[in-house]
Amino acid sequence: MMTSYEKLEARFLQISRLNDARSILGWDEAVMMPTGSSDSRNQTLAELAGVIQNLSISPEIGDWLGEAEGDPQLLPAQKANVREMKRIYTEMTAVPSELNQKLVVARMTSEQKWRTLRGQNDWAGFMPYMEEVLKLTREATRLLAEKRGLSLYDAALSTFSNGLTTQVVEKLFTEIKSFLPDTINAVLHKQKSETVIMPEGSYPIAAQKALAKELMGAVGFNFENGRLDESHHPFCGGTQRDVRITTRYSEKEFLSALMGVLHETGHAMYEQHLPLKWLGQPVGAAAGMAIHESQSLLMEMQVSRSAEFMHFAGPAIRKHFAVHTKNPEALSDENLAKLVTRVKRGYIRVDADEVTYPAHVILRFELERDLLEDRLQVKDVPAAWNEKMKAYLGLSTEGNYKDGCMQDVHWPAGLFGYFPAYTFGAIIAAQFFARIEQVRPGVRSEIAKGNLSGVQSWLTDNVWSKGSELTTLDLVTAVSEPLSVASFRAHIQKRYLS
Amino acid sequence: MMTSYEKLEARFLQISRLNDARSILGWDEAVMMPTGSSDSRNQTLAELAGVIQNLSISPEIGDWLGEAEGDPQLLPAQKANVREMKRIYTEMTAVPSELNQKLVVARMTSEQKWRTLRGQNDWAGFMPYMEEVLKLTREATRLLAEKRGLSLYDAALSTFSNGLTTQVVEKLFTEIKSFLPDTINAVLHKQKSETVIMPEGSYPIAAQKALAKELMGAVGFNFENGRLDESHHPFCGGTQRDVRITTRYSEKEFLSALMGVLHETGHAMYEQHLPLKWLGQPVGAAAGMAIHESQSLLMEMQVSRSAEFMHFAGPAIRKHFAVHTKNPEALSDENLAKLVTRVKRGYIRVDADEVTYPAHVILRFELERDLLEDRLQVKDVPAAWNEKMKAYLGLSTEGNYKDGCMQDVHWPAGLFGYFPAYTFGAIIAAQFFARIEQVRPGVRSEIAKGNLSGVQSWLTDNVWSKGSELTTLDLVTAVSEPLSVASFRAHIQKRYLS
Repeated sequence: MMTSYEKLEARFLQISRLNDARSILGWDEAVMMPTGSSDSRNQTLAELAGVIQNLSISPEIGDWLGEAEGDPQLLPAQKANVREMKRIYTEMTAVPSELNQKLVVARMTSEQKWRTLRGQNDWAGFMPYMEEVLKLTREATRLLAEKRGLSLYDAALSTFSNGLTTQVVEKLFTEIKSFLPDTINAVLHKQKSETVIMPEGSYPIAAQKALAKELMGAVGFNFENGRLDESHHPFCGGTQRDVRITTRYSEKEFLSALMGVLHETGHAMYEQHLPLKWLGQPVGAAAGMAIHESQSLLMEMQVSRSAEFMHFAGPAIRKHFAVHTKNPEALSDENLAKLVTRVKRGYIRVDADEVTYPAHVILRFELERDLLEDRLQVKDVPAAWNEKMKAYLGLSTEGNYKDGCMQDVHWPAGLFGYFPAYTFGAIIAAQFFARIEQVRPGVRSEIAKGNLSGVQSWLTDNVWSKGSELTTLDLVTAVSEPLSVASFRAHIQKRYLS
Repeated sequence: MMTSYEKLEARFLQISRLNDARSILGWDEAVMMPTGSSDSRNQTLAELAGVIQNLSISPEIGDWLGEAEGDPQLLPAQKANVREMKRIYTEMTAVPSELNQKLVVARMTSEQKWRTLRGQNDWAGFMPYMEEVLKLTREATRLLAEKRGLSLYDAALSTFSNGLTTQVVEKLFTEIKSFLPDTINAVLHKQKSETVIMPEGSYPIAAQKALAKELMGAVGFNFENGRLDESHHPFCGGTQRDVRITTRYSEKEFLSALMGVLHETGHAMYEQHLPLKWLGQPVGAAAGMAIHESQSLLMEMQVSRSAEFMHFAGPAIRKHFAVHTKNPEALSDENLAKLVTRVKRGYIRVDADEVTYPAHVILRFELERDLLEDRLQVKDVPAAWNEKMKAYLGLSTEGNYKDGCMQDVHWPAGLFGYFPAYTFGAIIAAQFFARIEQVRPGVRSEIAKGNLSGVQSWLTDNVWSKGSELTTLDLVTAVSEPLSVASFRAHIQKRYLS
């Protein structure tokens, strides 16, 4: 006789395996699929989603959860597994299927409209779709919030980063706002007097791929359980045993693609090192998007954009590109380190450096929190956006919706509550890296030699092997200290102002 | 209220969409998947197979079929759809799940053992696995034969080529045996006095791919709904709206890969032109493997290995390869046409030319029929194989199991009843092409100009658009005449002996 807990494990394993199918098909759609088969692929994905949905919401899961929660035999990790199962089951069942259907259609429609209307800078045309998405998302989030006993925005946060709270987000973002404008000014002032050489040239994509794979391997990506490919939008996809990252290349410039690859490699290494004994169980999965972003940003911002890493990567970069550049002096270790730490105020979040990035995120958090809590109307978003852009970055987006409030896919796709994960990822990455430096003082000189074993072993022990045993903030506290912006602020100070 | 027929359509559409997921994952496994994820992929595929199995065997399908068969409103194509649904449902339910499980395990084990033991020429080691597979396959086939009211080998044939019968296979194979040995002798004698130049050189894989895609496009492959990739064993996979063919390249020689691509292109074009209005329904699927092979062999043997096609393809071949060959005269149209029609007695079926190929298939048919019907024991296979190889091709395989009875994956994988499809494909292709020449006398000169519209339009009207409305032999009769070896014999005579 299987216990209720064992039944839950069996069901979630089954769901995980089918979700793996969905992930690979999603990767294939972005990377391999010929254009003419998108209708048929959508139908296959919808069918598969339906099968998974049915397996996920069946009422016996509720019964098993009730029994498993009272099971005195469970070990701590099994209890955490039940906690995660309950969270997932609650998310899957909180919203009645009729509302869910409406939401799926509204999100898909609004995302499609956004793709066209953004290019046309047509906010007025897009507004009704965003209003519909927001209305339905608010309704669904309210139902989830009630079931989980959370506030509205806490419920939205929790679907992406379980354990993150509005209160903590507001506290840390307020702190960042208190120093960020001055910091940006100071960094820009300092960098104005520095000489940086742009590496002009034409960089063959084959050489960029070879370099990317070489450095991925050096930092620890396991090609036995993963791949690197190309897609229009870079992402980390696939499955835990088959992690597939993508990038896009431009022949004019190689550092964006390379840093993008190293960012996705951070995501990938987390997935590749999740605990195998919990493969397919919720407790064995990554601990939410804030922690996931911390892993990509630790690899990109803390490691790869450091002077030490460029000292290691410089020879490889010159080996691949010396013959393709017009000014070989631009490929010196020192100049490369400068190139990957340029700071610039800009309109576009995804192009932002690590110093200005929090301003973009804080702006979005403040607006989406107010939108969801009905304190801000969709029609007033452009004015609010413009006001905050001026305050935080000194830029006006008046009339420029394309590079303003229409630039991101998140709201058109109904993903309210995601944005804080980016900056929390950066804050957590800084705090984790500071902790690594504490326990392993030689880590920077190891990185300069291309030796990431110290970084890897700390992350393995403290983050990767833990899966979802702890929720976001509890995990941070358990392996370092309660989350604060201190390490992030010190990191920016040290890298950009010392 | 849905009628029973409508319920059947909905269920089979659902199954088809999930089977599409399985096909893409299968393609991915062979073409893209990193080695370390095979365990996890197998589990995902097994889970998906289980979902599809449950949807396919549920008893309500039997009830719906009973009602649909008595529905006077159904159109002829819908009736054919019900016929195919019933065949599939019978195949899926004839074998109890316990036996089916055993069979799956035995086939997988024996195929794995075969991969190792073939290389070691170890027949004695492999024999027990093949005995187990045969025993269980025989049991399963007997259950299917009873349910469908067919003889044992007819039931085996029907799972691959519905409507093909042992009687017709025996009749046509007997006819081929009556002339083939003399024909082979005559062709070899004639070719001995001909001069053929081997195109020595090193042919870059990128150039081979470019040529392959150029010629695929020229014969009609639609790249909006398909791809060309590389894999260890060439195949045509993917889905009807996303047909993915593969090949493997050698830098030493380019014609094998190119002809392989054109062969798979024949399979692919059939899939790409199946009737869209029946997408996802059994009646909209290809009409079995004999017809499928007829499409690949029509494209490869009738079209691509013709002197006319080489007149068209010659300039493209020279454009890509003139700089890579040591003897450019080998790339003349005339020499290329000779190269793709070389005949040679050999041990290996997959390397055989179209003249000797039927001998390989007839041998296998005779043995597998007798094995299935318990008139031949597994232990006696090597002797029987050797005897027939000597009789049909004058070659001894004594002690050489590797290149003898252990060369094919079919029996280790339990695929008894498949082999006749290859030679029936060749016979049907010859008969179809003869009919095309009849109704469109200029077709060969069209091919010489790279214009395949005549071939395509006949195939569209007579084969591709028909899906599975008719079973194998009925389809052939309806669009040409009752199947006979006459056209195949005339084709060999004309191409090789005139």
